Parts: sequence; C-alpha cells; structure tokens
Amino acid sequence: MSIDACSMTATQIAADISSGKLTAEAVMTDHLARINARDSAVNAFIARIPDRALKLARAADRQTKKGILHGVPFAVKDIIDTLDMPTAWGSPIYADFQAPRNASCVEMFLLAGAIPIGKTVTTEFAYFSPGPTRNPHNLEHTPGGSSSGSAAAVADGMAVLGLGSQTAASLTRPAAYCGVFGYKASYGSIDLQGVMGLATSLDSLGLLARSIDDLILSRAALCGTLLPNELPADPAPRAIALFKGPHWHEASRPIQDAILESRDVLASAGVRVTDLECPREFIQLSESHKVIMAFEVARARQFEFRNHPEKLSGAFCSLIETGLATSRADYEAALATRDAGEAVLAELCLTYDALMTPAAPSSAPAGIEATGDPLFSRLWTVMRVPTVTIPYGRDAANLPLAFQLVGGFGADQHLLALSKDIANHLQISCELPKL
Amino acid sequence: MSIDACSMTATQIAADISSGKLTAEAVMTDHLARINARDSAVNAFIARIPDRALKLARAADRQTKKGILHGVPFAVKDIIDTLDMPTAWGSPIYADFQAPRNASCVEMFLLAGAIPIGKTVTTEFAYFSPGPTRNPHNLEHTPGGSSSGSAAAVADGMAVLGLGSQTAASLTRPAAYCGVFGYKASYGSIDLQGVMGLATSLDSLGLLARSIDDLILSRAALCGTLLPNELPADPAPRAIALFKGPHWHEASRPIQDAILESRDVLASAGVRVTDLECPREFIQLSESHKVIMAFEVARARQFEFRNHPEKLSGAFCSLIETGLATSRADYEAALATRDAGEAVLAELCLTYDALMTPAAPSSAPAGIEATGDPLFSRLWTVMRVPTVTIPYGRDAANLPLAFQLVGGFGADQHLLALSKDIANHLQISCELPKL
Repeated sequence: MSIDACSMTATQIAADISSGKLTAEAVMTDHLARINARDSAVNAFIARIPDRALKLARAADRQTKKGILHGVPFAVKDIIDTLDMPTAWGSPIYADFQAPRNASCVEMFLLAGAIPIGKTVTTEFAYFSPGPTRNPHNLEHTPGGSSSGSAAAVADGMAVLGLGSQTAASLTRPAAYCGVFGYKASYGSIDLQGVMGLATSLDSLGLLARSIDDLILSRAALCGTLLPNELPADPAPRAIALFKGPHWHEASRPIQDAILESRDVLASAGVRVTDLECPREFIQLSESHKVIMAFEVARARQFEFRNHPEKLSGAFCSLIETGLATSRADYEAALATRDAGEAVLAELCLTYDALMTPAAPSSAPAGIEATGDPLFSRLWTVMRVPTVTIPYGRDAANLPLAFQLVGGFGADQHLLALSKDIANHLQISCELPKL
Repeated sequence: MSIDACSMTATQIAADISSGKLTAEAVMTDHLARINARDSAVNAFIARIPDRALKLARAADRQTKKGILHGVPFAVKDIIDTLDMPTAWGSPIYADFQAPRNASCVEMFLLAGAIPIGKTVTTEFAYFSPGPTRNPHNLEHTPGGSSSGSAAAVADGMAVLGLGSQTAASLTRPAAYCGVFGYKASYGSIDLQGVMGLATSLDSLGLLARSIDDLILSRAALCGTLLPNELPADPAPRAIALFKGPHWHEASRPIQDAILESRDVLASAGVRVTDLECPREFIQLSESHKVIMAFEVARARQFEFRNHPEKLSGAFCSLIETGLATSRADYEAALATRDAGEAVLAELCLTYDALMTPAAPSSAPAGIEATGDPLFSRLWTVMRVPTVTIPYGRDAANLPLAFQLVGGFGADQHLLALSKDIANHLQISCELPKL
C-alpha cells in the first residue's frame, strides 16, 4: 500500500473517499493491519469484527451517495449497544450479552457512512476498576478511564474516531492521557438510547478524535442535522478565561506550565486570555458531584448489586453503599449547589467564550491498576456543560499533556469552532506512536 | 376467601401484610383470579407470570423484614425491562426480546417488597398505534395510551400499582380515561435505566394507582430514600390556580363542568382557587412539544427506521420523517420556547402551589383504534414539571372524568401531598368496575 490511512483524520478520509482518491476498503485494511500489529500490546479492543468491517467497507465503496463520515472506521465503548458485537459494560455479569439493536449514536454514525471496527475496553460500569488497556504512548502507563479503549485506539491509529461517555472524567481524562482531542457534549444534547447509564443527571456522550474538525463532523453526524457545507464558520476567539480553580495546586508542574505556555502562545497570537478568580459557588462542586453520582448510581445499578454482588468490584460496591447511605436531603442539597454553580457559570459565559483549565492533574500515571484522578472534570460534568480536551506538549517522560476548554451550556458548536481556532494557533497535531 | 384484596390500596395491603392480618399469597391469589376473570375482555396484559408471582408472594410471606410495598402486585408497562418477562416495546420487531436485567424502577419496587404480576400493553414505542386494551369501565372505549395496559389493569383491580411513562400524554390520559390517579415525575428525577426512551428531553417515569397515598409510597420506593415514618406531613393547600389555558375551548362540556365543580367544592372547603390568565409564553408550547418530540424520536429510533421499516406503523414512520425533516434551527427555537415557558412557570410556582387544569379533552372516546388526544398534557410534559391526575366524577355515559394538578419542577413530594389533601376534600374514591 502506498498510503497509510491510520494517520489520517476522518475529515481527510471522508473527503478522499468521496472524491474517489481513496477506497473505504483500503482505509479499513490499513486499520485492521494496525490493530493486528498493535493491539496485543495496547489491549484497546474487547471485541473485533475484521471480516464484517471489511465487508461493510466494500459495501460502502459500492454506495454512490456518500455520507459525511463515509468509510471512517470507528471504535465503540463497551457500554454502548451494538448489533454486531456483544455489550458487556466492562462487567463479567454481562459477558457476551448481545443487544438486539444499535445504540442511537452508533446508528447515526452508520447513517453518516462510518464503519464500526470494534468494541473498546471500558472500566467496570464506566466507573473505577480498569480493564487491560495500556497507554499507546508508553505501555507502562494507564490510558485513563473509563473510555480507556476508545482513547487508546484513536491515539494509536487503530480507529479514526471513538465513541465514549463521561459521568465524572471518563472522556476528558483518557483524551488527555492519550494525547487526543476529546469532546464531552452538553448534558441531554445527544441521544443516549442504548448507552448504559451510570448516573442519570450526569451522563453525557463524548467523542475522541485526532483533530477538531473530526469532532465537529462527528457531532454533526450524531445530531443528524448538519451537512458539511452547512457547518458554521469558525468564530475568532474573543475572550478566554484562564480558570485555575479550586484545585490548581493539585495539578503537576508540567500541567501548569503547559497551560501557562499555551496561554502565552495564544496571547502572542492576539487572543485575549484573562485570569478568572474562582467563584465561591464552585468551591464545593467537586464534592457535590461525588454526592450526586453515588446517590444516582446506587439507584441505577440496584439490579447488579442485589443479584450479582460477587461479580462486582469492591470499589463499585462501596460506591453503591455510599449512595444508599446518602440521605435525600444531602442529595437535594448537592443538586441545589449545582443549580447555583450552573447559574454563575451561565453568567460567566456571557463574558467569556470559554474557560481554559487543566484536564487532569498530571500526565498519565505509571501502572494500569488505576485510571487516575477525575478531580479536574467533576466541576464541569456536574454543571453539565460541554468541554473540549486539547492535547498540548509532552512531559519529560514524553507523555502527552493537555488542558480543556469549557463552554456555555448548549453552546457546543461554538465551543468546537473556538477550539479549532485555538488548536490552529497552538499548531497541535496528534502524532501516532512510532511502531 | 373472605377478603377481596383487589379493591384494596397498596398502602392498606402493605400495612395489613406487615401486621400479619393478610398474607402476600392471599393478595396475589385474588389478583390472579381477577386477571383470569377479566383480562380476556380488558386485554391489559401482554405477558403474565402467575406461577412465578405466587412463588414470589409465598417467599415474601416468609421474609421477616417487610418493605414499604410488601406483597403489593404491580404491573409493568411493556417498554420497561424485566428479567422475568419479555420486553417488546409494543413492536413486532422486539417480540419476545428478553432483557438481561430489570429496569431500575422495577428493581426499586422489588427492593420495597412489591411483586410483578405481569407486563402490560403499550402503544407501539409508547407513541400512537394502540394495542388491544379496552377501557375496563366500558369495553367499547379506549383506555388511552401509551400506558394503556397499566392504567386498565389498575382501574380494574388486576394490579394495585402500575409503572408507566410519559413523553406527550402517555400517563395522564390513560389515568384520566380509566378513572385512576396518575403521577408523572419531574423530568430526570427518577432513574430511567432499562426504560425505552422515546424523546430524550421529554421522557419521564410515571405511576398509576387508586389512591394518592399509594403514589406517595410508590414514589418513595422508586427514590429509595424515604421510609413510611419519614414521609413529610401533608401541607394544607395554600393557593391553587385554575388554569384554563390556550385549549380550554377544546375541552368537552362535562370536563369543563367537572373542573368548575371541583373548584367550587374546594372553595367551599376553604381552599383558595384563583383564575390564572394564560401567559403568552405558553401559547406556542404545544407546538414546541411536537417539534422537539419529532426531532428527538427521529434520532432515537433510527435503528428501527433503517432496519425494520416494514414492521413500523405508518404513524410512527411519519413521526420519524417529520423529525428528520425538522431543521436544527427549528428544534433549537422550540427548545428556546420551552426555556422561556419554564422560567415563567417557575415564577408562577412561587405564588401558586399547583395549577388545576384539564387532563384530557373529554372522557375516553369510543373505539380502540386510537388513544385520544394528547393536547392537554403537551404543555406540562414539554416544561418537564410533575403532574398528578385526579379522577373526578363521571359523564352521562358513566365514563370517568378527571383534571390534573401541575406542580413546580422538582416539587413532586409537595404536589403529591397537596393532591392528597385535595382528593380528600373532593372525597374521591376509585371504584372497580362491577363484574
């Protein structure tokens, strides 16, 4: 083969397939070869369907009408229902469970012409206990969780796009650790039919990709509304707030330096970045997130807790027990704290186009026994706003560093367009790990 | 048998079982006998498990620790996952599909000691196309939909409680047509894991029962927080608004009269009921509801639309086609209209404890080819507030009449306590149809 499609973006692939420069079969062949070469080390996939994926790719080549993601191989987190592969939620309770349909997000991707290449590792019920996935940039480090496999697959070039989700930091953190772009949608803005729920008022869908254009295109596919020529023009970034927040001192020095450096690069490019004091309404929000999550998970996962306790991890049982021991008054107090935070953030978003803040406390920690600390995402998840994770630079161990941009509720399209502009200013490109 | 448990409420049954006056087995036996006698005419159930239900009842009698719904037979709408019975969503596509777990609402009922007695008929995907269920008060009339079977089963004494849901009028309307109490929860306040979603920003869980106490107890069970002795005291109703709204003239004369009469009864009992002008922000809300619903359903049910169009009704295909043809701009405009309405309603709820308004345009229409008009529920569903349907009186054909009370978002407990007080003032009791 002369091309290596594994380093291409979805935007390039779909365009080249549409123009006839490339076939979906060639794209799929490259990705399947990459999986064969790499996944025994990375362990991103829990199920693969090479024959079926190739067959779908050939069928895509025969279609005259091309979708906006035509021929693009995508990875599906194992909490998302698929007709072609089992959906086990990272739990032995559901090993080999076969859903009778595709989740709506999978179906919308299919409608746009994308092709599923495999099911990717999640932590148990998208919570804490990790699977076998390793960080493709350094196999001795965690890829983060819970969207571990989707992030690792995209970072390694085994898939072009990854479907993931976030209830605490499950999308942002693996994106940051694996050095890819991550997008967590505004709560409720993308249908979750067929996606396992963890905490009903927190769960959001998310996407992993190696370019912001890919996130924009993928979101359009999921929303089922925009064609490429209808995508809005990119706005020039107007006002960005550097939000150190209540946990800045818990971020590593390289993370702090990466954000301050990107701020300086943006400033020299004419983008105004101003420091934002932490509103007092945000101080308790990480704790509120924990209370809401435990309370809601305890109710959502009673079936497994009552019927299969021996197949649950200790960490997951503890979370449910914490949730059951949480009083309704404490839960409602946490919801009220969230309401107050959301109101303040909505106000701030009248002044600022986005907040710039750490995506994780450090680069990917060593070891795969844990997936790192969700601290820097709890605030934004509990306030249900969209976020975009931007990889920026490497630390001394050559592991990716990152920050995140936080937008106003429902302003996902604006945040993505702004993120693209910022990523351009910072000249970010996601390089695949060398084989 | 000396007792007939079929006319008892859940509150009475759970108390009598706890005190040893009654056994769960006797309660279940009565209900199974009622089903045998009646369901060949009513057709409320799509699946029944008499042997299993009896076995569970006997096991419940052996338990020393009694739950707040101990031994209470409940019916489960066919869009809600159950481990004991198939879940077909009212569609031939999923005939005989067996879920690998219970929905969280079912599991929370089990945790409270309640016992599933059968799966009840829903319209296709909880939308328009009716199943075979008939109104137990007059078999030639519709029970309403989409929670047709749960409402009919509870009205007829074949189940004590019914689990349902609402996306347009799917709970309120069958409650009104069948003459039982109905409660639609504030959006997002009760976990929907394992419940088929129709429109992501509209779907709510709901309950059907023959007393408000039963709704209060059932909600406590679903929320998993309150024990009976922790339930709040009932507030005296303070200020009720009679809300005729934009569609009053579309309500039948008997419906109008029933509301005006109940207003007068309440007034003579010292409850202040004042007329409320329709805020202009509410005028377009029924239309907004339609736009939001079509847009969201089209995305949630792509799988069925693309893979099994021949097994979908014409009405459901039309809804999806309408949704696909709806522009994102129109959808977002409808969401903005909703936001404006919600803000006005929240303001009104500072003055009024509840709004009193029609539950349906008329009593149950003749025929079972359609389930009636959702008009009077669209406003409240789109604004995502809790509602309680109150049966009140009968029309000339002896069919139940009803109104609904609408509360502030999240103030479900308050609305239910207020509804209890109002039902007491109006001396409402839900009589079973005579055999």
